[in-house]
Amino acid sequence: MPKRSKKPVKTRDFQRTRQRILQGGFEEIFRRGFHGASVNAIIAHCETTKGGFFHHFATKEELGLAIVDELLSAMVRERWLNPLEQFENPLEGIVQNWKRVIADTPDAYIILGCPLNNLIQEMTHCDERFAARLKQVFSLWVDGVESQLAKAVTRGYMRKGAPLRQLAEFIVMSHEGAFATAKALNDPRVFARIQGMVHEVLGSYSTK
Amino acid sequence: MPKRSKKPVKTRDFQRTRQRILQGGFEEIFRRGFHGASVNAIIAHCETTKGGFFHHFATKEELGLAIVDELLSAMVRERWLNPLEQFENPLEGIVQNWKRVIADTPDAYIILGCPLNNLIQEMTHCDERFAARLKQVFSLWVDGVESQLAKAVTRGYMRKGAPLRQLAEFIVMSHEGAFATAKALNDPRVFARIQGMVHEVLGSYSTK
Repeated sequence: MPKRSKKPVKTRDFQRTRQRILQGGFEEIFRRGFHGASVNAIIAHCETTKGGFFHHFATKEELGLAIVDELLSAMVRERWLNPLEQFENPLEGIVQNWKRVIADTPDAYIILGCPLNNLIQEMTHCDERFAARLKQVFSLWVDGVESQLAKAVTRGYMRKGAPLRQLAEFIVMSHEGAFATAKALNDPRVFARIQGMVHEVLGSYSTK
Repeated sequence: MPKRSKKPVKTRDFQRTRQRILQGGFEEIFRRGFHGASVNAIIAHCETTKGGFFHHFATKEELGLAIVDELLSAMVRERWLNPLEQFENPLEGIVQNWKRVIADTPDAYIILGCPLNNLIQEMTHCDERFAARLKQVFSLWVDGVESQLAKAVTRGYMRKGAPLRQLAEFIVMSHEGAFATAKALNDPRVFARIQGMVHEVLGSYSTK
């Protein structure tokens, strides 16, 4: 085989190993928190070697930042923002999609909390680099919900003059607060109750 | 001095040292998280010795559990529940007292998050003893708000048939979610915006 044809295979392997470490790191950190997850446990979890790990990430912090930038922002897009595009009425979409996210998530995961919220609570006040990246992901989410609410006004589903930014922040806050409450009370039924309240608030701005 | 008179002094000193370690431990854990706060840092913070620390608490976990049982439950009572007793209209009390709590808390502390929420997010999924104690403190808060809402119904400020438990959970959820959001966005103005939304929800059940 000519030497130059080997390069894509190596690149592919490199990327595969990197993704496996990202995913294994995410799962360990989700279960134990960033401080609680050791590099050794992450290495064991994703079946790589110490050399393999440090070839891709200089420190556990570098891995954590890559998880925020790549995995958490993708989760916000894939689980929350992209599905909203399928709804003609964005207000209905916000409520229905939230219900779907909860229904699709096993109880054991719900009790672990929202991975984004967990990292925000644990890392924001003690690490500026985490704080900046986590703020970006959180803002991406609020911005995305706000633009759906603006679409709801344009399409005539929502009253003009509704405080869109405040409502978007309230919706994301309730999602994160519901996870915190479900975790505190060890009770996944919290979600249906909080969703009911948010539905009511959105209803008060609805034209239908 | 007769020997038996020394005992109360010793007991007083013992209690003082214990309180100092509890308070110093609280502050270190509030700043760095439970995993991030080392016993050495706690010892330095509260100006005790290693011997003094371990005389009172066998492990950092024992200290953490005592902080939850003693300090966090006292904070819920003193900052949230007891002040509500002063209001004739409990709905007004919930909104006004929440505003006062935020106004009294320095911005730097607000960005550190709610100490109860921080510990819930960090510890609940990895330590059953913390999970049980934190659930007790969270439930104490929800129970207290619910009994204020019941009082609001009895006194004629709130519509009969309002879902009191759901509303109480929603109010505490919003408080914790607002802290999480303010922390995520590094913006204390989040509180006024979230409070506005909660005020609106309470207003929809008000008779006035």
